[in-house]
Amino acid sequence: MEQWKTVSRRTILAHDKFLTVEAHQVQLPDGQLIDDWSWVKTPDFVNVVAVTEGGQFLCFRQVKYGIEGTSLAPVGGYIEPGEEPLAAAKRELMEETGFLAARWTSLGDYLMDPNRGYARGHMFLAEGAREVAAPDADDLEEQLLMRVSRQEMEAGLNAGEFKVVPWSLAVALALRRLEQNGRV
Amino acid sequence: MEQWKTVSRRTILAHDKFLTVEAHQVQLPDGQLIDDWSWVKTPDFVNVVAVTEGGQFLCFRQVKYGIEGTSLAPVGGYIEPGEEPLAAAKRELMEETGFLAARWTSLGDYLMDPNRGYARGHMFLAEGAREVAAPDADDLEEQLLMRVSRQEMEAGLNAGEFKVVPWSLAVALALRRLEQNGRV
Repeated sequence: MEQWKTVSRRTILAHDKFLTVEAHQVQLPDGQLIDDWSWVKTPDFVNVVAVTEGGQFLCFRQVKYGIEGTSLAPVGGYIEPGEEPLAAAKRELMEETGFLAARWTSLGDYLMDPNRGYARGHMFLAEGAREVAAPDADDLEEQLLMRVSRQEMEAGLNAGEFKVVPWSLAVALALRRLEQNGRV
Repeated sequence: MEQWKTVSRRTILAHDKFLTVEAHQVQLPDGQLIDDWSWVKTPDFVNVVAVTEGGQFLCFRQVKYGIEGTSLAPVGGYIEPGEEPLAAAKRELMEETGFLAARWTSLGDYLMDPNRGYARGHMFLAEGAREVAAPDADDLEEQLLMRVSRQEMEAGLNAGEFKVVPWSLAVALALRRLEQNGRV
């Protein structure tokens, strides 16, 4: 199978640091040209499922502009320009919760939209987390930090209470990994 | 916790049927106004993890413009205007594989981006699938339909071979559901 080729690209919307849209001229393997293939760029991000030394999960109840009502959410945020994903994950865990984790496991990184890009999400499991500071998040949204059991995470995932695609993915992958490692 | 309010919205990019961008004026609970909050609209979509009567999983090896190399992928596609998500799921399964499934389970629907919307992904598990026709997909991409074992799906998920956030979520949720239902 052959990749599609990017022949040229031009910016058609430079909104702010959170959103740029490009139009690409794309060449298919059979030579066919598509002139106006849209390609969307938003910041890459991390999501972190954090488990405390005592085996509890750090989890938010929060509001977000796009979500009706509230949602459960793992730790997460945008990667800063030039920042490594793991460094961003550690920074977001500290800023949002004040916790420091002893063991970090990558759960992979994934593209949001196979057609139009959008962003890459880097998923992490953080174990052995302990509280070392007060949270210091600069997010505009209200959020309530909770410590919940594995059973509550499972139930929340099953019920669709993590209402965002990458949030549910982070939780599902973390629960799988903990089970596979026998750390249920 | 209080929702943010949309005060007004205007279209700032109407690219094609696959992409519209709006700028919203948004009011925060404390009264603060944000003038240029970007909101991105692409079509809602379905992903379907299909299991045959014989217990094999239908899975693609495919190329996509945004993906380097190839990726494993479940059945999936855009919901047509006015179409119900389950109807879209059944249509995509038939078009992409020629299979009809006896039992359908919703695995929930999830927003792609809690800040900027983007699209809603509806996830399904389809069981008891049997081949009734030849595939008739109108997708531009090359894709190879495979029947794989549960172990191969598990290994692919663990290795990050489903390279897209919603694809990995569909697979992770389907595997969970099958395990919970004792249909391993």
